[in-house]
Amino acid sequence: MSDVSRLEKIVADIQPLNQKWVDQARARTGQLLMPPRALGRLHEISEKVCGIQETITPTVERKAILVMAGDHGVVAEGVSAFPQEVTGAMVSTFLAGGAGINVLARHAGADVWVVDAGIIPDLAPEEFKNPDRLIINKVAPGTQNFAVGPAMSREEAVRSILVGFEVAEKVIDSGVDMLGTGDMGIGNTTPSAAIGAVIAGVALDIMVGRGTGVDDTGLERKRGTIQRGIELNAPDPKEGLDVLARVGGFEIDGIAGCILAGAYHRKPVVVDGFISTAGALIAHSMCPRAVDFMFAGHNSAEPGHMSMLTHLGLMPILNLGMRLGEGTGGAMAMMVIESAVSIFRDMATFDEAGVPGKDG
Amino acid sequence: MSDVSRLEKIVADIQPLNQKWVDQARARTGQLLMPPRALGRLHEISEKVCGIQETITPTVERKAILVMAGDHGVVAEGVSAFPQEVTGAMVSTFLAGGAGINVLARHAGADVWVVDAGIIPDLAPEEFKNPDRLIINKVAPGTQNFAVGPAMSREEAVRSILVGFEVAEKVIDSGVDMLGTGDMGIGNTTPSAAIGAVIAGVALDIMVGRGTGVDDTGLERKRGTIQRGIELNAPDPKEGLDVLARVGGFEIDGIAGCILAGAYHRKPVVVDGFISTAGALIAHSMCPRAVDFMFAGHNSAEPGHMSMLTHLGLMPILNLGMRLGEGTGGAMAMMVIESAVSIFRDMATFDEAGVPGKDG
Repeated sequence: MSDVSRLEKIVADIQPLNQKWVDQARARTGQLLMPPRALGRLHEISEKVCGIQETITPTVERKAILVMAGDHGVVAEGVSAFPQEVTGAMVSTFLAGGAGINVLARHAGADVWVVDAGIIPDLAPEEFKNPDRLIINKVAPGTQNFAVGPAMSREEAVRSILVGFEVAEKVIDSGVDMLGTGDMGIGNTTPSAAIGAVIAGVALDIMVGRGTGVDDTGLERKRGTIQRGIELNAPDPKEGLDVLARVGGFEIDGIAGCILAGAYHRKPVVVDGFISTAGALIAHSMCPRAVDFMFAGHNSAEPGHMSMLTHLGLMPILNLGMRLGEGTGGAMAMMVIESAVSIFRDMATFDEAGVPGKDG
Repeated sequence: MSDVSRLEKIVADIQPLNQKWVDQARARTGQLLMPPRALGRLHEISEKVCGIQETITPTVERKAILVMAGDHGVVAEGVSAFPQEVTGAMVSTFLAGGAGINVLARHAGADVWVVDAGIIPDLAPEEFKNPDRLIINKVAPGTQNFAVGPAMSREEAVRSILVGFEVAEKVIDSGVDMLGTGDMGIGNTTPSAAIGAVIAGVALDIMVGRGTGVDDTGLERKRGTIQRGIELNAPDPKEGLDVLARVGGFEIDGIAGCILAGAYHRKPVVVDGFISTAGALIAHSMCPRAVDFMFAGHNSAEPGHMSMLTHLGLMPILNLGMRLGEGTGGAMAMMVIESAVSIFRDMATFDEAGVPGKDG
């Protein structure tokens, strides 16, 4: 089967949230030892997990964050405050265990997997202490500069989504209950903002922020670059695959594939911040039902993020002014989701506790 | 020493946040492997913990939630959707382990202590499997109905703050690094709203909400009751001790004492929702520096809560539409605080990781 046919079949096979299980879960929530739905969004979260997993004994105990990494040709336009070699250096750090995502994933009880979906350097897994946590599935050593032409070919776009799908599938097969998406790629707020502007139809002055910290001049340059890239490549806003081939990035495509894998295998996927949500926009464009399996981990400090989430109809779980990426916001949100599921499973009912109910 | 003199001495001995340690912590944050302050509020949180604990190796590993319980004479006015005996029944459930706070505290790695600061029934610790987790320090079997007179005497108000202080001190002495406040008391959104209205100077139509779920008629009755109570008792808004004697509750006073103990012993105190924040208003009124040791766990769905937090100058960590009390929002926020401290302690620096910094 060709890559295109495989991707089409995956999308066609994704089923929506199972409302029957959501309804059963809501009924159970109503019996729990508290005023009606007194834990607010925790109930919505646990009931969505029930609808995803088709059960009223949901579990999110085994968790994994997939950090997709890629490099970006558009960095040549001077859109990032950090040099391009930081991408590879950070991938090495993820494997050594000292980065933000390592610390927060450890605290949340999630494993970190790192995927080379298209970074420039060639890393050698055997140099790291956890070699099996580095998955090399490089589509190309970085995208092309989308300010002067398409970021990648359509074939590469399809391939890079399938890379994300296959890696996530492998992680799911190892017994993971919940996935989190993460990203690494110097310059990747630039393609993400382009994707957000095109798919969500939001103006560039809202969608384009400072990323890792460009100054005012850099911000203007970044906006101008994205503007030119969109005009030159003219992506079709209705077709995610076209948008990502023209102005996307390999790690963003990998994230879209990871989300599709979660939806296909009925696992909750915690979408991290700005870059991950660009991936979610692609996944949603290809398969609107995929949003049923997404949780928005947090509201990034990157200004365009909320517009993307609004387009998807998702409410962020956390709002802590974070803007690191790597999956850090998703890792934090996993703790909330796991708390929500614990409440659903472990809280006593009024009957079990022998406590009188409302209005005596 | 009299109770009043003891309380005055405690308040006088509380020192503010140590800015020297906050500054040192900020310097360390600046070296960590990420764009400047890219984890947003996590940095503010960890640096505040450093200023509280006077260290750049902060620790919040050992955590305890103190659930203060009390009954309320004002329930006679029909201000709650639940019958008064639920207070004692819930205290028993806390000790059996099936309530919301048990589930969430377990998930956050915090121990739960339950304090009878003034409930109506007499519980027997030996009937529970964790008898040492029930601390009986009853000031009186419930407050008086503040719609017809003061809720308690001034002596009882002082005593009940000291009860909270002493219990928290005992827990701190056992080696706890961070405290969370919790509450149980049918009817206790009524005194809490009264305290908020008086101390924060907020109108009753903003401050009074549905609590555990009164209907429209109940809500009007609750507002009217609080209005009459405030007019009749005329508490002095500038004097926390007077406010709590006239319209307070024993568990709210206990929470205020718990916060003062955290401030006195330089331990972070995570303030839960509406009722706990009423306690925080009392503590702040008696000792404005106490706010330096508080974290606002979450923004309650109870409408007046945000006005209370604004009065204190605190930004809630979470906003999940929760309104259960018991310390549940504080337990959830502890996970965020612990994550923040982990990032501060365990994330590599640019130098350690050998990664090039900003602008190459």
